[in-house]
Amino acid sequence: MTVKVGINGYGTVGKRVADAVTKQDDMELVGVAKRSPTYEAEMAVDKGYPFYAASEKYLDGFEEKGIPYEGMLEDLLEKANIIIDGTPKKAGYKPVYEEAGVKAIWQGGEDHELTGISFNSMANYDEAYGADYLRVVSCNTTGLLRTLYPLLENVGIDNCKAVMVRRGADPWDTSRGPINSINPVLDIPSHHGPDVKSVLPEIDIQTTAVKVPTTIMHLHSVIVDLEKEVGTKEVVDLWEETPRVKFFEASEGIDSTAKVMEYAKDRDNNRGDLNEIAVWKDAIKVEGSTLYYYQAIHQESDIIPENIDAIRAMCELEEDNEKSIQKTNEAMGIQ
Amino acid sequence: MTVKVGINGYGTVGKRVADAVTKQDDMELVGVAKRSPTYEAEMAVDKGYPFYAASEKYLDGFEEKGIPYEGMLEDLLEKANIIIDGTPKKAGYKPVYEEAGVKAIWQGGEDHELTGISFNSMANYDEAYGADYLRVVSCNTTGLLRTLYPLLENVGIDNCKAVMVRRGADPWDTSRGPINSINPVLDIPSHHGPDVKSVLPEIDIQTTAVKVPTTIMHLHSVIVDLEKEVGTKEVVDLWEETPRVKFFEASEGIDSTAKVMEYAKDRDNNRGDLNEIAVWKDAIKVEGSTLYYYQAIHQESDIIPENIDAIRAMCELEEDNEKSIQKTNEAMGIQ
Amino acid sequence: MTVKVGINGYGTVGKRVADAVTKQDDMELVGVAKRSPTYEAEMAVDKGYPFYAASEKYLDGFEEKGIPYEGMLEDLLEKANIIIDGTPKKAGYKPVYEEAGVKAIWQGGEDHELTGISFNSMANYDEAYGADYLRVVSCNTTGLLRTLYPLLENVGIDNCKAVMVRRGADPWDTSRGPINSINPVLDIPSHHGPDVKSVLPEIDIQTTAVKVPTTIMHLHSVIVDLEKEVGTKEVVDLWEETPRVKFFEASEGIDSTAKVMEYAKDRDNNRGDLNEIAVWKDAIKVEGSTLYYYQAIHQESDIIPENIDAIRAMCELEEDNEKSIQKTNEAMGIQ
Amino acid sequence: MTVKVGINGYGTVGKRVADAVTKQDDMELVGVAKRSPTYEAEMAVDKGYPFYAASEKYLDGFEEKGIPYEGMLEDLLEKANIIIDGTPKKAGYKPVYEEAGVKAIWQGGEDHELTGISFNSMANYDEAYGADYLRVVSCNTTGLLRTLYPLLENVGIDNCKAVMVRRGADPWDTSRGPINSINPVLDIPSHHGPDVKSVLPEIDIQTTAVKVPTTIMHLHSVIVDLEKEVGTKEVVDLWEETPRVKFFEASEGIDSTAKVMEYAKDRDNNRGDLNEIAVWKDAIKVEGSTLYYYQAIHQESDIIPENIDAIRAMCELEEDNEKSIQKTNEAMGIQ
Repeated sequence: MTVKVGINGYGTVGKRVADAVTKQDDMELVGVAKRSPTYEAEMAVDKGYPFYAASEKYLDGFEEKGIPYEGMLEDLLEKANIIIDGTPKKAGYKPVYEEAGVKAIWQGGEDHELTGISFNSMANYDEAYGADYLRVVSCNTTGLLRTLYPLLENVGIDNCKAVMVRRGADPWDTSRGPINSINPVLDIPSHHGPDVKSVLPEIDIQTTAVKVPTTIMHLHSVIVDLEKEVGTKEVVDLWEETPRVKFFEASEGIDSTAKVMEYAKDRDNNRGDLNEIAVWKDAIKVEGSTLYYYQAIHQESDIIPENIDAIRAMCELEEDNEKSIQKTNEAMGIQ
Repeated sequence: MTVKVGINGYGTVGKRVADAVTKQDDMELVGVAKRSPTYEAEMAVDKGYPFYAASEKYLDGFEEKGIPYEGMLEDLLEKANIIIDGTPKKAGYKPVYEEAGVKAIWQGGEDHELTGISFNSMANYDEAYGADYLRVVSCNTTGLLRTLYPLLENVGIDNCKAVMVRRGADPWDTSRGPINSINPVLDIPSHHGPDVKSVLPEIDIQTTAVKVPTTIMHLHSVIVDLEKEVGTKEVVDLWEETPRVKFFEASEGIDSTAKVMEYAKDRDNNRGDLNEIAVWKDAIKVEGSTLYYYQAIHQESDIIPENIDAIRAMCELEEDNEKSIQKTNEAMGIQ
Repeated sequence: MTVKVGINGYGTVGKRVADAVTKQDDMELVGVAKRSPTYEAEMAVDKGYPFYAASEKYLDGFEEKGIPYEGMLEDLLEKANIIIDGTPKKAGYKPVYEEAGVKAIWQGGEDHELTGISFNSMANYDEAYGADYLRVVSCNTTGLLRTLYPLLENVGIDNCKAVMVRRGADPWDTSRGPINSINPVLDIPSHHGPDVKSVLPEIDIQTTAVKVPTTIMHLHSVIVDLEKEVGTKEVVDLWEETPRVKFFEASEGIDSTAKVMEYAKDRDNNRGDLNEIAVWKDAIKVEGSTLYYYQAIHQESDIIPENIDAIRAMCELEEDNEKSIQKTNEAMGIQ
Repeated sequence: MTVKVGINGYGTVGKRVADAVTKQDDMELVGVAKRSPTYEAEMAVDKGYPFYAASEKYLDGFEEKGIPYEGMLEDLLEKANIIIDGTPKKAGYKPVYEEAGVKAIWQGGEDHELTGISFNSMANYDEAYGADYLRVVSCNTTGLLRTLYPLLENVGIDNCKAVMVRRGADPWDTSRGPINSINPVLDIPSHHGPDVKSVLPEIDIQTTAVKVPTTIMHLHSVIVDLEKEVGTKEVVDLWEETPRVKFFEASEGIDSTAKVMEYAKDRDNNRGDLNEIAVWKDAIKVEGSTLYYYQAIHQESDIIPENIDAIRAMCELEEDNEKSIQKTNEAMGIQ
């Protein structure tokens, strides 16, 4: 069986999921819908993706620029089994999808309550199996889950405290700052802790966050009180086996988020993305039962493979999450 | 009695201590020494500070630019009772000061072992009383001590974990980056924890640090496990009474390090400095016995009043640290 | 005679003009008006400036925070002879001032047409003499006029081409970017050329502009075709005599906008401002009749002395612009 | 005939030329040499590039990390007909290449005098035909030549003035600043003008330069006095036909260097590079005979196709530069 996937919203997330879908042998990209006639719309057409206009409002623009479209969003919904919603937060398409009778996946900008299921491939794939609606949690939450879940399962976690050092804007977003400031997120604790619990309610976790003048990757400083004393090596070995977690080492010249991004470009990754979570191997350290580590999150792309796995679970293409993860990884070139 | 103070090294720290000394009625600035004939040298002369050349090497430069000097560093040492060393790390002047028989104060870039005493006005003034040599701990360590010491004394601290989000360079230093990266400090835990313990050995504290592309202020995200449950209000009240800790509020428009610096400029502070530690009152929160807070540190100036208090302790001008702190604060306009 | 000056809008410009007015012996600050109860409002009150609420809308906020106000904007207008409008662009207060019968000065964000007079102290003081309304041109235009006017008068200008490398946001403005991008101003030529001509119609000038990720100072690269061949020294000598133009030299360690700002802080300037235009003496160069130079503009403060001179001209306190410039400079500590 | 190409220095330039060589059907990559065992070395091995150690000094490191090498630089030189030198400026390998009897290409960091030929594919391919040594001019100079050469040939240039707004550091280089400053290049005029003349001596061009806090792309503001009056459309049409010059439009959402880079990533370009010069079509404007335009330069990659053309010229693979340009472009996916 091949699932017919549509994309609504062809921005940072939408364009990446579209590419990823075309690499899966059990999925078919039946179209992407976009509101405005920017260069991304032209590129979607150039790539041969069936293109749909998401709004009557900008139709003139598509015609003026000669960007052909095969129909409106509604037409796409008729063709798709499942929609990936990459529209801005609270765009409010849920009634439209319900009316059309398609399954749908939202992203981390939406609230847990919208769908009742917050998804991570390793942590709760079973919960998503056969579901009609879910949200893939945000890039930061996905990052925390990738490293915390194996600890929880294999060692046990008493408590986790993490500070999110967040990029101020995405690389292409030149309107937002700060240019020269650190802006603390003054709601204490930050929403990331509750977001992790929306997937893994049993974790005791508190987070804080600050915004800094960089456009590439968030960085987390994480401190975990483990349920028992283990050696640093045991944690290293555990993550070595964990999918979508990748080690970097200062001794090989990779000691910053900028160098991680350079590595991703060197590896010929699509768009220079890094779907894996970057963990500095040199800086993993257990003292007694307290574990310290840093990880970096490529905000634009770490959630893309989770979207693919979520499609597979919701459309009942694969029952076993490990098999889905492996299939997605191989198709996307994730090591 | 008036203590004769000399400054060796007229850079970020030296020029600020010089200004601060001239505001004290129990101290006299007998001179500042500097190696190279930059505009700062001219400014010292313009301000009427007795100026000394710190090195034979650049004497031609002083003459060429018409910057008058009253003698060499050695001449200054003869006139001074105590020297503030603001030279770069490990400049190695200790034997020179010993030979000249002057007391000396170093800054946080030097190791604790150089002097055996690491100083903070509130935490260990008595230890410095009558001492010949000490170091004032770094800006970040001073910042941690300002807020942690009253907690330790009045509530009790089980454990403290802090993440230092550090500025990449000082405002004037245009050679250093990063421009667009977050660089984790990969030595885990970072040196700040042990530095705090060099003053307060009884605190259980672990720190990590990341470097970010900003030039103004460090920001700390601090989480403290207190020895007992207290209300948020008790902590607020405690710090309200703590000297050199100042509250800021997002509701008044101050929600970032940049706004804090704008406030300092608006208050007509010398050089736009902020000698106090900035704590966001809105973001102080106690849950159970766990306290969360953010504080920002003006890296160039928070240690200046500690240098003044250290002079007063070492030269036995005042036995009571609270009186010295109050005297320094009034002279420097610290609220 | 003492002119009664009111300020409407107590932001970047308003607070600086208020301070400057209090330093003049022929002016009296009768009050400042502000809309919202931020910390700046508290500071105005702390400084003893008569404070007025600019809008009914936020009166609750003033009461809640205990910020006393002496009346509404209308009350201030009754007391003032002249108003400095520091409100955001197109706030539209002109009818209000007309109704109240007060003179008024706007800033460079407004169009020339609003008042019919665009002002610079050196270039067209006479035009402002006795006028009811004018605008002081923007920081960049003021900067260009400061260096171009003496060239025009003393050497003659065939043509001028300038590129404005603009700061992306003011230091306190942490919402605006870009963080890591250069954004060209795609309207060609940029508005700065026509703005210069609004004061000096006879200059042939074209400008372009780019926005870059810095918060401190704009930088201009200027190339002038002079009407005759002169030596570099003649230009240096000319600007040496020009008020509000200040030379900086890389050989003294000042080779960037950041170092210029450090110098301004070191000079104990109010808020670390630099009212003068910074010209790099090392980089002034005439080849044939083509002059090259760089200048840096402190966007927040270069126009403040022009506001003071404009008050003096409009209120007929002083007929001679050179005398007004000198009087303003001495009062404000401009070298 | 297939030319055997070796790469000495596997950094920003070297790794890109290596990839480009493998895409040409008339060239063979016989090996890359690198000094230190960083992750780039591992990646070269992973890609199957024959790997050579450039220095005895770090051999232990290669063995420690298990990075296999096929020999030393000298061994590579024996196998190659031509070497691309991507080592740091003034690394001084010329005598080594002469001794080995291989042709060699240097990059723009080296002086014109090293080889006597400074190369650009469009401007002086013939001069390079059969040559033993040359340098490909720098990224900025290449960018200027790409747009100026067709103007010179087709319209005529009286004079050109350009301001280079330069990135402070490469994306991966986290040690260099400035973080918050504009640093003017105080040597007036800057070296870029003479560099253009090293290829096209007949152009009258003066340049200045400033360094700004960004890591992605340089931006040029260029003003050209043409020999005759032409319409904006003629210039647009001319560049539309010019290889390696690509138009971008704000109306399609591309109004900054950041957006240009996002476009390059979206196009699935190798490493997110942009080998073409980006010119904003909206901002090309001719007034009388004066032409204004902005262009952006991807510093890491615009010179890569010139290196390929230079190999073809020097090794006499193709006499006609247009054919070489087209062949290179097709192989590299340049539009």
